[in-house]
Amino acid sequence: MAVRVGVLGATGAVGQRLIQLLDPHPDFEIAALTASGSSAGKTYRQAAKWRVDSPIPDDIADTTVTATDPDEVPTDVDLLFSSLPSSVGAEVEAPFCEEGYVVSSNSSNGRMDDDIPLVIPEVNADHLDLLEVQRDRRGWDGAMVKNPNCSTITFVPTLAALTDFGLEKVHVSTLQAVSGAGYDGVSSMEIIDNAIPYIGSEEDKLETESRKLLGDFDGASLSHNSMAVSASCNRIPTIDGHLENVWVETQDDLTPDEATAAMREYPSLDLRSSPDPLIQVFDEPDRPQPRMDRTLGDGMAIAAGGLQESPFGLQYNCLAHNTIRGAAGASVLNGELLLEKGYI
Amino acid sequence: MAVRVGVLGATGAVGQRLIQLLDPHPDFEIAALTASGSSAGKTYRQAAKWRVDSPIPDDIADTTVTATDPDEVPTDVDLLFSSLPSSVGAEVEAPFCEEGYVVSSNSSNGRMDDDIPLVIPEVNADHLDLLEVQRDRRGWDGAMVKNPNCSTITFVPTLAALTDFGLEKVHVSTLQAVSGAGYDGVSSMEIIDNAIPYIGSEEDKLETESRKLLGDFDGASLSHNSMAVSASCNRIPTIDGHLENVWVETQDDLTPDEATAAMREYPSLDLRSSPDPLIQVFDEPDRPQPRMDRTLGDGMAIAAGGLQESPFGLQYNCLAHNTIRGAAGASVLNGELLLEKGYI
Amino acid sequence: MAVRVGVLGATGAVGQRLIQLLDPHPDFEIAALTASGSSAGKTYRQAAKWRVDSPIPDDIADTTVTATDPDEVPTDVDLLFSSLPSSVGAEVEAPFCEEGYVVSSNSSNGRMDDDIPLVIPEVNADHLDLLEVQRDRRGWDGAMVKNPNCSTITFVPTLAALTDFGLEKVHVSTLQAVSGAGYDGVSSMEIIDNAIPYIGSEEDKLETESRKLLGDFDGASLSHNSMAVSASCNRIPTIDGHLENVWVETQDDLTPDEATAAMREYPSLDLRSSPDPLIQVFDEPDRPQPRMDRTLGDGMAIAAGGLQESPFGLQYNCLAHNTIRGAAGASVLNGELLLEKGYI
Amino acid sequence: MAVRVGVLGATGAVGQRLIQLLDPHPDFEIAALTASGSSAGKTYRQAAKWRVDSPIPDDIADTTVTATDPDEVPTDVDLLFSSLPSSVGAEVEAPFCEEGYVVSSNSSNGRMDDDIPLVIPEVNADHLDLLEVQRDRRGWDGAMVKNPNCSTITFVPTLAALTDFGLEKVHVSTLQAVSGAGYDGVSSMEIIDNAIPYIGSEEDKLETESRKLLGDFDGASLSHNSMAVSASCNRIPTIDGHLENVWVETQDDLTPDEATAAMREYPSLDLRSSPDPLIQVFDEPDRPQPRMDRTLGDGMAIAAGGLQESPFGLQYNCLAHNTIRGAAGASVLNGELLLEKGYI
Repeated sequence: MAVRVGVLGATGAVGQRLIQLLDPHPDFEIAALTASGSSAGKTYRQAAKWRVDSPIPDDIADTTVTATDPDEVPTDVDLLFSSLPSSVGAEVEAPFCEEGYVVSSNSSNGRMDDDIPLVIPEVNADHLDLLEVQRDRRGWDGAMVKNPNCSTITFVPTLAALTDFGLEKVHVSTLQAVSGAGYDGVSSMEIIDNAIPYIGSEEDKLETESRKLLGDFDGASLSHNSMAVSASCNRIPTIDGHLENVWVETQDDLTPDEATAAMREYPSLDLRSSPDPLIQVFDEPDRPQPRMDRTLGDGMAIAAGGLQESPFGLQYNCLAHNTIRGAAGASVLNGELLLEKGYI
Repeated sequence: MAVRVGVLGATGAVGQRLIQLLDPHPDFEIAALTASGSSAGKTYRQAAKWRVDSPIPDDIADTTVTATDPDEVPTDVDLLFSSLPSSVGAEVEAPFCEEGYVVSSNSSNGRMDDDIPLVIPEVNADHLDLLEVQRDRRGWDGAMVKNPNCSTITFVPTLAALTDFGLEKVHVSTLQAVSGAGYDGVSSMEIIDNAIPYIGSEEDKLETESRKLLGDFDGASLSHNSMAVSASCNRIPTIDGHLENVWVETQDDLTPDEATAAMREYPSLDLRSSPDPLIQVFDEPDRPQPRMDRTLGDGMAIAAGGLQESPFGLQYNCLAHNTIRGAAGASVLNGELLLEKGYI
Repeated sequence: MAVRVGVLGATGAVGQRLIQLLDPHPDFEIAALTASGSSAGKTYRQAAKWRVDSPIPDDIADTTVTATDPDEVPTDVDLLFSSLPSSVGAEVEAPFCEEGYVVSSNSSNGRMDDDIPLVIPEVNADHLDLLEVQRDRRGWDGAMVKNPNCSTITFVPTLAALTDFGLEKVHVSTLQAVSGAGYDGVSSMEIIDNAIPYIGSEEDKLETESRKLLGDFDGASLSHNSMAVSASCNRIPTIDGHLENVWVETQDDLTPDEATAAMREYPSLDLRSSPDPLIQVFDEPDRPQPRMDRTLGDGMAIAAGGLQESPFGLQYNCLAHNTIRGAAGASVLNGELLLEKGYI
Repeated sequence: MAVRVGVLGATGAVGQRLIQLLDPHPDFEIAALTASGSSAGKTYRQAAKWRVDSPIPDDIADTTVTATDPDEVPTDVDLLFSSLPSSVGAEVEAPFCEEGYVVSSNSSNGRMDDDIPLVIPEVNADHLDLLEVQRDRRGWDGAMVKNPNCSTITFVPTLAALTDFGLEKVHVSTLQAVSGAGYDGVSSMEIIDNAIPYIGSEEDKLETESRKLLGDFDGASLSHNSMAVSASCNRIPTIDGHLENVWVETQDDLTPDEATAAMREYPSLDLRSSPDPLIQVFDEPDRPQPRMDRTLGDGMAIAAGGLQESPFGLQYNCLAHNTIRGAAGASVLNGELLLEKGYI
């Protein structure tokens, strides 16, 4: 029987992707849609400017949107997917957890808190048990798990495949799609025939979230990975798909062939939305490319390519669909993990 | 009195930019235009598919294009600007030098030869005297000077401003405009809503040309700079302007403020096409941007911004107009230097 | 049992779409791939620069490509899909028909010949019987059917729905995607931040093919529709999907509501690739849009919208996926019709 | 001596273009900048997100922005250029006129009022004397002149050149740049790899403004031109430059050669911002194109091309820079006309 779920912030870019993924999902049934106060009381069709490239599901279109408030969400909803702006998330997510809801959140608030698990299931599913610590400390009946930022999710699985070699230094340049900023985040006049070498707070997210994700959880507390990461972030005129150039220096020698093998053999999970393989490594030097490769594994795979020696260690490129693997799909996957591990 | 000049490879993307820059130039007078055999005998208007955003100068439009052959170029032409494909340049440039022509070339062939000066005038004008060695060794009446690749020119001036701090390691990611590949180099189906993390041979150019440019010439031979450089090159959907993310590790401590000061104070030259300042450093973190900043200094300035500390030293972005500062303007500037130093 | 089919010109943009559509098709089995002489003998993976957004089917990748020559194609292949350049098609298609092959062709050569049926199955399936006349006249064992140009296919179904009102005058402006010109047809430097108000021979195709498609076949000969059509064609920076602005003047009064109803009720067919409905009419005035609506009906639907009164009759917009409904899918659909009508 | 002028709505897209044009203008001196209340009190550099491709003039950057209120603008300012949103313009422009200011406005409110002259100087400078009627009727010491919408300005000059042939029916399809919607008007997610066949209220503007512009003023009242116009408007992914496909049916026969001659000979004016020629007609069938031709005549020329016979009369394309000739430059030109005719 399907778990009844809700979407907090259902009208935005990630909210629409969540609906696109959840509507046909056999384990979940959408039972609540929330948005800002000005949308409350409208049907979803009226409230959302739908821009995903598949039609709004009919039943969703006619659903009435409520305010993002625990009192407005039916109590028989067990799991909430949150794609709220972080300023809103910081205010309203905790009250939902207090009321007993389990929240799988894409919002950036609280990601680095030491009792909130930040999870990519194929990378650090064991961190989910930090929820026990969280409940103890916060006295919540509910729980909150976060997925990382879209640009973090793109390169961390490739690093995870290389941890045995001893990660020491990572440089990463990102070429990020406009959808990552939301529907009205980047105006066309800003980006056509242009690129913007700055995305507010983004570099810090790659640098800190990656170390938390690759850290160790001993059952009581989480230590971050000791590698050092430096990121440079750019927005470019693509719709979907973040492409990243990565340099990795490791303690042990690491050849491109060894790295290719490690990435190809890195295990995926049996969760419904996990792709197999998790990381698809191209031999062609000009791949991956956003428009060509962002839909691999239904948008949930990580693509890699261009592995070569640099004067400073290994160098390669990687890519993921930023609103599927990097946001909505990441939250759905965490929902599947919560279900498998018995948290809902 | 103006020097009579010719353009080898006049119909291509860089050739058109050369004409756009040379036609109004007070020191040079266009007296010869060459192209491939199929264009020989046609007027320039017939031979070139003009795509620069200013009209073809009238007198140029009616000039008859000749084959790229020393026998077809008037002997009273003193200076040739070459923007030939490298495979063609490798065959035909040397015969022009043997015949006594001085060639300022943008073609990549021969750039790393140890008796061919590779010059950005504001950076290493003293390397031009390698021409004495060249003439001795090759027995040429003419001479050949090269300018670097467009992506190399974009970041080397910023490194030149930092040499006092002891350059050790440089990582650079490039976001390159389509014009760098020539008019038919990148098809629209390849690049709309996309990015390509590979440009053939480009990474090697940044890594090796930069070390030659920042090397020392002792009057007899040239030693390359000892820094190590690793580049990752990407093509993105912009028309003009290469943007680059740079990380620099130096022997001495280097703060963002010191780097900003060093770049702002780095001297330009009195040559007609040299901008003042050479490097324009933005305080706004989201600049430089290709469409906004590529025409600074009539397309000859280097723009920089986003200077900040990284875990590994200094991090910043830089940008230059790839077909002006990075190609045609670079060759014209070398022509001006040849003139000032008495080589023509 | 599946019909064995071949693809002539299998490496180009439309050829790749044909393979993408035919590979999973239950009625057809790909048994031959041809291309230009330089590709003959290579595997398809080597010969084609694959740019469709799904991977090359494995069995196709390893198929050896042959020259486009009747002697090179197995005789047990019954149906050939042709997406050759028209200059090549004009030379080689007829010899295949002489040898007994039935050809469903997307190439523009011969489309207006009076014994070659030009067919959109949902619009004029009855024209297919012109094949009897063709075989009589040409003495072919095989046969040749053509589908129209991509920009013609986009607007003709909407006109077909309005024929009862007496079509008199049609103005149409097209906003066409770059894929219509083939992979290297439009360079990125031509089209980024630009539009080109000219596509060679395109206007004539809309004006003449539409009148042939909507003409009457009396069993012996075909008379063209008496309406007059004037087209203005533009290339814009979109990857796929032709959008068209249409004005129609009819003999009888025609309101937007009547036109909407006529389009929505216009019947589709039972063929496997025919969408249902054929024409999807939007109420939202800003639809259809290429990126949002080109994949309706798996890329085989016609989308319409913006129906309103103009000072001169009806005005509306329509859209179709130019390389699926407008090219590869059109040929496959004609193949399905040939099969249903017993021509293969 | 320069006239002291102000800019109402100085921080928007058109406001920035106005400053770019007025700052170096020898007849005008910028003495006031207004914007919405939230910007009042800030320097212009703080208030405006400058996105024009030349730097903010230094003196302008440090000017304090005031609210858009007659009490806040110095009384020695004689002429105001207005680029306010129409809803704001409808409220605040008239009070400025009552207070004695002469307003040259680009805002759409009031354009069709029968005592407000709607003027393109080279087309209908004589309409300016409608200001006498306006002052009589409204009791204003000041005055208000409007320029038309950007898409109207693009095609009306070409029609003006053809009036002798008896204009009867005009169909026009527009391919409009994103800058026409203001800096945040079109999000990148809406328009990359896309086109939108709808711009709110735009079609009506082309249809009605064109008839007012080509009407007759008898000294007392204005009659509109009797031609019928139908427009279909599209937004495409270009930064600047509106391209339009036009069909014209005339009372008298009109060949493409006659139309070409009429456009080329159509007189310009001696005003400082009027280009010469006004209309530049290309022989190349694929011109004009937005990126190539929008800066002709410093962005003030009208480009035309593709003149040919259609089944229904003449067919051609035209283009103008929408934020220069179509907006800011149009207002400046009307300011120059006001000055020449002694209204300021």
